[in-house]
Amino acid sequence: MADGISLEELQLAARNHGMPLEALRWDVTPVGLHYLLTHYDIPAVDPATWRLEIDGLVDRPLSLSLDDLRSRPALEVVATMECAGNGRVLIEPHVFSQPWLLEAVGNARWKGVALASLLEEAGVLASAIEVLFEGLDRGCEGEEEQVYARSLPLADALGEDVLLAYELNGVPLPPQHGYPLRLLVPGWYGMTSVKWLARISLLDTAFDGYQMRHSYRLRQEEDEVGEALSRMQVRALMVPPGIPEFPSRARIVPVGECVLEGRAWSGEAQIADVEVSTDGGETWAEAELAPRSDGRWAWRGWQFLWNAEPGEHELCCRARDEAGNEQPLEAPWNLGGYANNAVQRVSVTVS
Amino acid sequence: MADGISLEELQLAARNHGMPLEALRWDVTPVGLHYLLTHYDIPAVDPATWRLEIDGLVDRPLSLSLDDLRSRPALEVVATMECAGNGRVLIEPHVFSQPWLLEAVGNARWKGVALASLLEEAGVLASAIEVLFEGLDRGCEGEEEQVYARSLPLADALGEDVLLAYELNGVPLPPQHGYPLRLLVPGWYGMTSVKWLARISLLDTAFDGYQMRHSYRLRQEEDEVGEALSRMQVRALMVPPGIPEFPSRARIVPVGECVLEGRAWSGEAQIADVEVSTDGGETWAEAELAPRSDGRWAWRGWQFLWNAEPGEHELCCRARDEAGNEQPLEAPWNLGGYANNAVQRVSVTVS
Repeated sequence: MADGISLEELQLAARNHGMPLEALRWDVTPVGLHYLLTHYDIPAVDPATWRLEIDGLVDRPLSLSLDDLRSRPALEVVATMECAGNGRVLIEPHVFSQPWLLEAVGNARWKGVALASLLEEAGVLASAIEVLFEGLDRGCEGEEEQVYARSLPLADALGEDVLLAYELNGVPLPPQHGYPLRLLVPGWYGMTSVKWLARISLLDTAFDGYQMRHSYRLRQEEDEVGEALSRMQVRALMVPPGIPEFPSRARIVPVGECVLEGRAWSGEAQIADVEVSTDGGETWAEAELAPRSDGRWAWRGWQFLWNAEPGEHELCCRARDEAGNEQPLEAPWNLGGYANNAVQRVSVTVS
Repeated sequence: MADGISLEELQLAARNHGMPLEALRWDVTPVGLHYLLTHYDIPAVDPATWRLEIDGLVDRPLSLSLDDLRSRPALEVVATMECAGNGRVLIEPHVFSQPWLLEAVGNARWKGVALASLLEEAGVLASAIEVLFEGLDRGCEGEEEQVYARSLPLADALGEDVLLAYELNGVPLPPQHGYPLRLLVPGWYGMTSVKWLARISLLDTAFDGYQMRHSYRLRQEEDEVGEALSRMQVRALMVPPGIPEFPSRARIVPVGECVLEGRAWSGEAQIADVEVSTDGGETWAEAELAPRSDGRWAWRGWQFLWNAEPGEHELCCRARDEAGNEQPLEAPWNLGGYANNAVQRVSVTVS
């Protein structure tokens, strides 16, 4: 774990918003508590002149206003979204970028138009293989001036529940979540769900912009191509029990019965089980899963009744999904510090 | 400026939410962009059983539900709120606590009940000199288990526009801002405006709890009594112009006319003027103030037209209030790293 975080990293942390882990208690994360990573700046958007352009390899290019989108059949999806960099600060040796601990997650109710229906309306040509999404947020990265842009293989873009979202938890998309429109790809890490969406282009080649070619790839060295990140790896998190010490955030728990609770999710498959350890990972016991609710893409609640005895304890939790993916005790290092889904560890003093 | 931020400070930063400075563009800060400091944990509150108790030196103790409060005449106040620790990381030598740069601010529309009217209803006894506010958020600090609690002199508590707020920007107070009820003391640093309010007690002595006696005091040494922080010092902030470089956040501005804009506020008096320097503070020119709107406690907009010429520039802004308070070029150091209202400096490359 890093001893010293640089001022540049702190500048990023001061702009990012983590979800305080006690917010795992809400089925749907309240507006203002969902994690937030603003890659460049939040752009100013005038909804009166804003348009979504759908172009490239289509029969009928579309230029749609927000009212045009709102007048189409709406789809609502509850989805857990996690940043691919969640857990980065817990990786050793230290990786310089957005310095996330474990708070880069949230679970929200998104409403919008199914992307597949709009692509059908535009008429995708047979030669198209990828869909490019361009945001209005601009910056300079790797010495390239760019808008934030990511692509998806056509089959993934046509996936069930892939949304162009204009509402979050029943209110218009807040500026920080991509007003007036964002992509929402359930099950994938958050970098996929391009905010402040302005253009969707159908391509016959793989898009190799900066955010595809350089960022969000699992690799060991700069000159390696590596593997593109896509679906969220399986993870469970718990609400740290008891009360915190300020400023260390160390936890103090009273003696006796203590309900440990949290959420678990995986972009690959449904959650199969969650296990808890109260002795730092020596022994594990099964937690009780809450009934499934809010559909396939929402996190799943779990609880574990712990009889807290006086002393120092290290609490851990880990999830497994129905595809057999499990959380590691230690995640393998990679150059970008991505996808660290090692088990959470919470030290507590019971007294 | 600190070279290395500790992991403990990062843990705090990851839970705090700064207001990205481009959000200075909104008159009223959208929900989810206002700064947020959660001292301990966000408590779980059941609105069905929650009560506000008003007790101590009163004729008629009150126990009020949220509906009781909502049924009383409502007052709406737009107020700028800033953390007393805003700018802490920019103080040298480094002070260990919440590691704020400049983002610990917001301007919101609060709605609730005038505190003075409830105190009148309860009938404050002549012997009362202070009003104590206790939240539901609990933690351990300075080896004392405590709820977050702060007091106000009676005269300040009876001040115009002091609110018990149950709405923010037209929606029920979000959990992170103190649901179901918080104190709102316009013009004072944010620590005053106790969240998750449960009890208001009238006292005949000065409350000397941890957050009064130890925290939020201007002092040079641990054994000094020091001066209690109260009203926000005068400050102007600007939207960093142009586009950012990732990850350094360095700014790149195109050659030509560039509108610099921002906000200014003071808890002591109205804003008198804002000045801008484009040469690192060598020379200053007056910015244009926007018309006053949203009343006495809201920040005031300002603009400055800059003809950006190629090269490196350091932009600065500073405000003065009608009581003659001005921002310093360097703020004096203090043990808690509080109230650093030194002028903001933004380095830009024009090309």
